Amino acid sequence: MTKKPRTKYLVGVDVGGSKTMAGVFTRQLKLVNALKISTKAHRGADEVIQRIVDCIRDTVDGAGLKLSDIESIGVGTPGVVEPRSGTVVLAPNLHWKNVKLRSRLARALRRPIIIENDSKAAMIGIHEVELRGKPRHAVGIFLGTGIGGALVLNGALYGGCAGVAGEVGHMVLSVGGPTCGCGKHGCFEVFASRTGMVSRLQDAVKKGEHTILEDLLVQERRERGALRSGSLRRAVRSGDALAKRVVHQAAEYTGIAIADLIHMLSPEIVVLGGGVIGALEREMMPTIRRTARAHSLLRFVHEPTIMASRLGDHAGITGAAALARDHRR
Amino acid sequence: MTKKPRTKYLVGVDVGGSKTMAGVFTRQLKLVNALKISTKAHRGADEVIQRIVDCIRDTVDGAGLKLSDIESIGVGTPGVVEPRSGTVVLAPNLHWKNVKLRSRLARALRRPIIIENDSKAAMIGIHEVELRGKPRHAVGIFLGTGIGGALVLNGALYGGCAGVAGEVGHMVLSVGGPTCGCGKHGCFEVFASRTGMVSRLQDAVKKGEHTILEDLLVQERRERGALRSGSLRRAVRSGDALAKRVVHQAAEYTGIAIADLIHMLSPEIVVLGGGVIGALEREMMPTIRRTARAHSLLRFVHEPTIMASRLGDHAGITGAAALARDHRR
Repeated sequence: MTKKPRTKYLVGVDVGGSKTMAGVFTRQLKLVNALKISTKAHRGADEVIQRIVDCIRDTVDGAGLKLSDIESIGVGTPGVVEPRSGTVVLAPNLHWKNVKLRSRLARALRRPIIIENDSKAAMIGIHEVELRGKPRHAVGIFLGTGIGGALVLNGALYGGCAGVAGEVGHMVLSVGGPTCGCGKHGCFEVFASRTGMVSRLQDAVKKGEHTILEDLLVQERRERGALRSGSLRRAVRSGDALAKRVVHQAAEYTGIAIADLIHMLSPEIVVLGGGVIGALEREMMPTIRRTARAHSLLRFVHEPTIMASRLGDHAGITGAAALARDHRR
Repeated sequence: MTKKPRTKYLVGVDVGGSKTMAGVFTRQLKLVNALKISTKAHRGADEVIQRIVDCIRDTVDGAGLKLSDIESIGVGTPGVVEPRSGTVVLAPNLHWKNVKLRSRLARALRRPIIIENDSKAAMIGIHEVELRGKPRHAVGIFLGTGIGGALVLNGALYGGCAGVAGEVGHMVLSVGGPTCGCGKHGCFEVFASRTGMVSRLQDAVKKGEHTILEDLLVQERRERGALRSGSLRRAVRSGDALAKRVVHQAAEYTGIAIADLIHMLSPEIVVLGGGVIGALEREMMPTIRRTARAHSLLRFVHEPTIMASRLGDHAGITGAAALARDHRR
């Protein structure tokens, strides 16, 4: 008598600068169980990797499963990722450089591991589950602490020759504009990321303008991330003029960046995600759509859909699980 | 006794706002004979199409061949082209709107006709002949009267969902910058096309600056195209400070645009062409390369080659012939 093989499951992990999330999925990408922990990036790669391992073990355990029930594990991390070598080449948010994440996780968990950039993983989650794999050509833009992006071209994730394509955050929209964390000037990220909006608020306050967010701006200087996107939303909704102007400008620059991407890639759909969109969708999307439309020269040929993802912070774990499922070993 | 089938040839045509060129090629894309005429765009589509037909007939005749020796004919035109329907949807340089070029040429010449956007045709010429089809991912940027672009992704011309991808000239590099012919502000084209550089010179002269090009600037206002790229080169080489500054700025903005495209698409190679590069390669390429490098964040992962095409104005006819050869009927 042969044993009936047990149904296999997948794990998707999204490692972020502040939070790490793991989820157990069926092969049909239905979420079975998820767990979120704080990443503790400042404690260094060894401890962060141990925390990822524990988070995966606990999530699998919480689903009533064992690691042997897991077919493979996909992990999205911020920064420059080389999926083929399994290395996180550079991830400033994690203070990582050349971390061999795949082999270290494989050693600890004894399951096949697939790693990918977090925006690319999130885009795959959105494309496969939310968009049901339909668009042949799609652009993903993730407004968060920074700005990430990912491209699905001809039905597949596009990485280009070095696997790093889709880096939309450092498109220069304003030559000679405000300084970006990357050292360049006037990058998209300078205007429309959370960090960028905080800097724009700080610049205005230095010039004598006022906002109800002043205490949080002081706190942000000591503790990065103190002024969250939700605080921006509350300020806008309470009528704070400076916050309104900065968020409006972020939406306008996002619309201009989207028009540039439409000219470049002629996608069927542009999908937005990330914490900023999660918090400020209602405030930003009408301006984003209107500005993108006004700046799109070829809208008489084709006008792509511009939408906010509904997957929220589940996009990353879902996409990481999809990548784990589809990976050819 | 069976007749030995005669070797077949291809024709490639490049229709421009001022000149139209046709070439007869072997299936190995060796040029047999070429002919250049003036387009006379102002005389309207009927006469331009008749001139294209005559130019093709004369080129074939000049090669000692008959139309029946021609397997198929590829035609590149400026503007928005729908290869599938064979329509030039919009070509401001030709004053064309919804011109059914393919069926009209097919009726006159009784050969299979393939039409494509001129930058895409030129990129195929460069990719197939100059680069021997090697790069999997390549970006082409053509600085001329305007700025055109084309992408080869995963080894093939990339058009996106509407076939219009690669429109790099209207990337916004300077929000709120000088007005572009398209109605937007601060497009790449405003700084680095011939038209854009002429406008920058005119703006400076209005503000009281001087240049040896002043007479040509006056003439350009009456007759578009009077100030050619070669005149810019002569002014730069004779030490004209204003011309030097405008050409230097054009090169800098081109470098910034290239860095944006590298971040977006991670190509192996970025190739530059068009009349401006043809005339000003020596003046512009060092600044273009240096600026692109300085603005590329991921150059430690991979640094694409940035080069000027050697095909010059043969790129378009060569690529059009290649498209004609490879078209699946």
